[in-house]
Amino acid sequence: MAKGKKLYEGKAKVLYEGPEPDTLIQYFKDDATAFNAEKKDTIDGKGALNNRLSEFFMNGLTQIGVPNHFIKRLNMREQLIRSCEIVPLEVIVRNYAAGSMSKRLGIEEGTQLPRPIVEFSYKDDSLGDPLVPEEYIIAFNWASQQDLDDILALALRVNDYLSGVMYGVGIKLIDFKIEIGRVWEGDFMRLIVADEISPDSCRLWDIETGQKLDKDVFRRDLGNLTDAYTEVARRLGVLPANVAPATKPTIVH
Amino acid sequence: MAKGKKLYEGKAKVLYEGPEPDTLIQYFKDDATAFNAEKKDTIDGKGALNNRLSEFFMNGLTQIGVPNHFIKRLNMREQLIRSCEIVPLEVIVRNYAAGSMSKRLGIEEGTQLPRPIVEFSYKDDSLGDPLVPEEYIIAFNWASQQDLDDILALALRVNDYLSGVMYGVGIKLIDFKIEIGRVWEGDFMRLIVADEISPDSCRLWDIETGQKLDKDVFRRDLGNLTDAYTEVARRLGVLPANVAPATKPTIVH
Ligand SMILES: Nc1ncnc2c1ncn2[C@@H]1O[C@H](COP(=O)(O)OP(=O)(O)OP(=O)(O)O)[C@@H](O)[C@H]1O
Ligand SMILES: Nc1ncnc2c1ncn2[C@@H]1O[C@H](COP(=O)(O)OP(=O)(O)OP(=O)(O)O)[C@@H](O)[C@H]1O
Ligand SMILES: [Mg+2]
Ligand SMILES: [Mg+2]
Repeated sequence: MAKGKKLYEGKAKVLYEGPEPDTLIQYFKDDATAFNAEKKDTIDGKGALNNRLSEFFMNGLTQIGVPNHFIKRLNMREQLIRSCEIVPLEVIVRNYAAGSMSKRLGIEEGTQLPRPIVEFSYKDDSLGDPLVPEEYIIAFNWASQQDLDDILALALRVNDYLSGVMYGVGIKLIDFKIEIGRVWEGDFMRLIVADEISPDSCRLWDIETGQKLDKDVFRRDLGNLTDAYTEVARRLGVLPANVAPATKPTIVH
Repeated sequence: MAKGKKLYEGKAKVLYEGPEPDTLIQYFKDDATAFNAEKKDTIDGKGALNNRLSEFFMNGLTQIGVPNHFIKRLNMREQLIRSCEIVPLEVIVRNYAAGSMSKRLGIEEGTQLPRPIVEFSYKDDSLGDPLVPEEYIIAFNWASQQDLDDILALALRVNDYLSGVMYGVGIKLIDFKIEIGRVWEGDFMRLIVADEISPDSCRLWDIETGQKLDKDVFRRDLGNLTDAYTEVARRLGVLPANVAPATKPTIVH
């Protein structure tokens, strides 16, 4: 599939023009960054794992009717997605305290929250993606009240589903981040899950041992990140074999 | 734990008075019945597997905040549950056509539905648990409109979660049935998931092969039912070892 021109290079992914209108090709890099890119490294195999895992989760969401940008995986590092207008929010769902919430409120990591909490950060790297109250979102018109209600409902469905996926393979879903995009179908605007769902964007702890199987392994130097992501993929039956290109190269005799 | 007197013997389970007020002990039998008990058999090991699997699913629901009757497993065949007033409905959630829906509407089994469909049967064995429109439920006061709205929301959350649990281990959740009960907390009435969640009450198909891993194996004579349920338990890490009593017998030297 012919890749169009490069549109955006982020910290973990690159976006190219897609083959059809309203499509993009999302390329998963091996780069890992943390603390707003103060910490950086290249992690062999991370891109391929996230590409495959994001495909797996987005496909699952499609099956339960949660609309999302995934169209199909093209090869080890690339997937075809629907282009959308990203709502400038990081939508974070937390089941257990961890990370910035633990720090800000002084709650020990791993403490179960009274109920799942959805919070929003304003997507702006130069500001460090600051946490914002819902009032800000409406006031600055980043999303309407109706959009926000819909985003909340979507986020909670994703949470129920992903919590189940993880529970089935002995993993606790501590929290995760999604991005939401707008697409137009005629006059009708629809909100869809975009960006990625992967161990880069979730906190995943082994239920038995508490072992971290997510990007905190990199953030906190807890070991080999690829091993952690591979373990998640292995449990979900997203086997190394499946990480190979979906479109097999033509063998010329 | 001392079992109180037998309160009810159903086709698959027996209820005993529990040790505390508002508790019951639910005993899982090895009996299997189908077609309103026209077909019957005893299946070695089924009770223990369903006891363990229902514990696993109910515990998962508790973790995501879906209230249910499960308190704790007592031994291989028994669990302690909260006593509730069962709403006389079977709440059925369908993701793919199968069973009675396929027959009544002439839709091929396995056809994906446009969206998850929640339907209700009136719980009355002598009538064969007939399918009823929501209007009947309100008119006959089996549940109020508010209850019904809440039941619908609960059922869809259970569906999202269970679909995820199954997807994580390569199983498609075709449909399932739950029962809902009322409990009172002071003046406040709350609806909780009751009865059981197990391969007796779900349709589960292997994603790759389409193999049935649920009670249809018994209904349709497709093989060994215990093998099918064991396969589900194995994939979920509910290993045979865990099927052993939670309360270990005291060894007297
Ligand atoms: N379906 C989509 N349509 C359009 N843009 C998308 C879509 N999915 C994700 N994006 C955007 O693609 C970019 C992905 O790149 P990456 O995650 O590497 O960015 P980043 O470095 O995290 O920076 P930022 O997310 O702050 O822009 C993000 O900007 C994300 O918002
Ligand atoms: N928490 C609970 N409190 C009170 N009753 C319960 C609870 N959970 C399940 N039950 C009831 O316990 C019985 C379980 O027995 P079983 O499933 O064998 O019954 P059955 O033969 O299917 O008959 P039926 O379900 O039609 O009564 C059911 O009647 C069910 O409604
Ligand atoms: Mg990003
Ligand atoms: Mg029953």
